[in-house]
Amino acid sequence: THHMFLDRLSWRYATKKMDPAKSVSEDDVAKIVEAVRMAPTSSGTQPFQLFVIRNPEVRAKLREAAYGQSQLTDGSHLLVFAAWDNYSDARIDGILESHEAERGANDGLKAYYERLKGMYLPRDAQTNFDHAARQAYIGLGFALAAAAELEVDSTPMEGFEPEKFDEILGLREKGLRSVVILPLGYRDVEGDWLVNAKKVRRASEILITNID
Amino acid sequence: THHMFLDRLSWRYATKKMDPAKSVSEDDVAKIVEAVRMAPTSSGTQPFQLFVIRNPEVRAKLREAAYGQSQLTDGSHLLVFAAWDNYSDARIDGILESHEAERGANDGLKAYYERLKGMYLPRDAQTNFDHAARQAYIGLGFALAAAAELEVDSTPMEGFEPEKFDEILGLREKGLRSVVILPLGYRDVEGDWLVNAKKVRRASEILITNID
Repeated sequence: THHMFLDRLSWRYATKKMDPAKSVSEDDVAKIVEAVRMAPTSSGTQPFQLFVIRNPEVRAKLREAAYGQSQLTDGSHLLVFAAWDNYSDARIDGILESHEAERGANDGLKAYYERLKGMYLPRDAQTNFDHAARQAYIGLGFALAAAAELEVDSTPMEGFEPEKFDEILGLREKGLRSVVILPLGYRDVEGDWLVNAKKVRRASEILITNID
Repeated sequence: THHMFLDRLSWRYATKKMDPAKSVSEDDVAKIVEAVRMAPTSSGTQPFQLFVIRNPEVRAKLREAAYGQSQLTDGSHLLVFAAWDNYSDARIDGILESHEAERGANDGLKAYYERLKGMYLPRDAQTNFDHAARQAYIGLGFALAAAAELEVDSTPMEGFEPEKFDEILGLREKGLRSVVILPLGYRDVEGDWLVNAKKVRRASEILITNID
């Protein structure tokens, strides 16, 4: 059997130079976005918002807030993962409601999310934001996997100024904070110093501990 | 073209009941683990350790520290993602060394990781641990994607007592903290209340914001 994602683990890399002449098809972008939407998250909360930015002026502005990294404008699409800045009564009620809408109301479901409120709402905002950010990173993993499977290049980046991103995209007033970004595009094989570099990963014997 | 991971987004679900009579093959486990090893992380740090636990007694002990959830023992393998509790000089030197070993020493590489030290080492341990944990969640995303592609069931779980896990696995003395776990196995279709439930996800119009 042919396993597409598993065959692309070495093919993918954090693309340093994208070809500005090539655009990712909307069909492929839709598949990558759908993978993020379907990614599992803690208690089904999906505590983040995914921004899909095509607008060249907005991407040029964001590029300035990302140390000028060229992938933001040489790629055709920019994904911005923005995590919830906190959990709230209203946000958890929203999750409960969408579960009830799909599966019908029941006491167990209601009790489950009430327990979640009891656990999350007393915590400070930073703890809850950090928890939400982790869930966004599962989504990032799914986006990376989907892009690799489609042979779309991508560059996961934390190297940007989140405060400036939040301001440009108006995130704080929506209770969101940018956590990680992912330009999508196609590698410029001639211009990318990294494309032929040997991939560096810790050896299995070091990264993995077996308890048999 | 056939895209395997992308075809499994609805197939996969957080399996509630696994069939204790079925084991995941070591070949498939190796592929899932390799996906974690190949997952990208911030500056190539891979700041976590992956535990692959087959031992039934250890899994039974861990199950007690995971509110008795049956997947820990009904599955055949348990993955435990344990993030670095902090960054350190020695840890970042180790990353630099493995890059030098693969790509050859050069001043730019050394300067890059010196800058990283300048950024990470003054931060408090909790901030660095939170950052490391996020990287582990990219690995979790890759493990989930790989398992789905192989039609291996899995259940991402935060519902366990990390302090007890750390004690049972001896993590703290290694500078590690358990952050998320993933039992692997096969669904027990008869016994799993969730297997036929409608999957609940926020609608695209709500989760996604397009800026065109």
